[in-house]
Amino acid sequence: MPHIQLPEGLPGIVSAFAFRPETAQPLRALAEVLLRGPSTLTRGEREMIAAFVSTRNDCYFCQTSHRAAAAHHLGGDYELVDAVRFDYPNAPVSAKLKALLGIAGKVQQGGKNVTAEDVARARSQGATDLEIHDTVLIAAAFCMYNRYVDGLATFAPTDPQLYDEMGARMAHEGYIRVAEPTMAGGR
Amino acid sequence: MPHIQLPEGLPGIVSAFAFRPETAQPLRALAEVLLRGPSTLTRGEREMIAAFVSTRNDCYFCQTSHRAAAAHHLGGDYELVDAVRFDYPNAPVSAKLKALLGIAGKVQQGGKNVTAEDVARARSQGATDLEIHDTVLIAAAFCMYNRYVDGLATFAPTDPQLYDEMGARMAHEGYIRVAEPTMAGGR
Repeated sequence: MPHIQLPEGLPGIVSAFAFRPETAQPLRALAEVLLRGPSTLTRGEREMIAAFVSTRNDCYFCQTSHRAAAAHHLGGDYELVDAVRFDYPNAPVSAKLKALLGIAGKVQQGGKNVTAEDVARARSQGATDLEIHDTVLIAAAFCMYNRYVDGLATFAPTDPQLYDEMGARMAHEGYIRVAEPTMAGGR
Repeated sequence: MPHIQLPEGLPGIVSAFAFRPETAQPLRALAEVLLRGPSTLTRGEREMIAAFVSTRNDCYFCQTSHRAAAAHHLGGDYELVDAVRFDYPNAPVSAKLKALLGIAGKVQQGGKNVTAEDVARARSQGATDLEIHDTVLIAAAFCMYNRYVDGLATFAPTDPQLYDEMGARMAHEGYIRVAEPTMAGGR
């Protein structure tokens, strides 16, 4: 049961967004620019970083929904996303993405863990400063989203089909809503 | 030295904002609504929560600048802010704020640490659902800002006078900028 009276019938962060539309707006806008905005990292790569960090933070709702979003960008390849989530050094992804996932894993533990060597390794695999920046910020942002979702004990559905559909919407329609779903709960 | 080529001469998160104005906009908007928007928590209370979480995350730039912002909302009372940062159970603040700081400290460690008892305690001291929500989100957001600032190894000045002036601007002018400072560095 959520710690506060969130609108019922909405999953995870969506219920918190409906409870507080004033903060939902920048939180949705940040996800949109980071995960779907113009970038030399593919949308699939960025969603994999988000799913990876959410997995490390053990946030069921976020890891499961962003896993699905990543898979929808990657032709339905859930296997690849799970390889990245659980064992990225041996996953069939580029050396550049592995180096960026290494940085994301450090950020998840705390920003100071990122070393000049981590960054040099990413750069030697072709990562640009902007790609390194966005990796750090995606990892940092999911340390926020994950804590937000779990810190309020939001409702997390367990039906895999529901997450697959949610991931398709996240991948193809994005994170911006013109209006939040109507608030059912009180505040 | 920063890990990537950030614009020179700008401190901490401001250099990262100038490097990537597309993400700066929602990041600034989120801080503005959480720390300065309409709320039954005072701006001083909210800045103290931000300074407290940034202290726990050991982010020098964020804890020092938000400490100053909090003090500027509290008539210059740096002593009170430091009491909250380092020993809030014994600080001369309300029982409600102490209960909210307890929740913020749990969120800093991870969202799942927040218990129904933590929330019941805050509620019994008069905290509303919206105040509990905002406390969780402020704490979560500073787990992001702190990681962003340190994950890029941004430049942190050490001159206390500079932070006092920065805190005054944060407190009285806020977090929104119509335009980011001109980018001096490359990307």
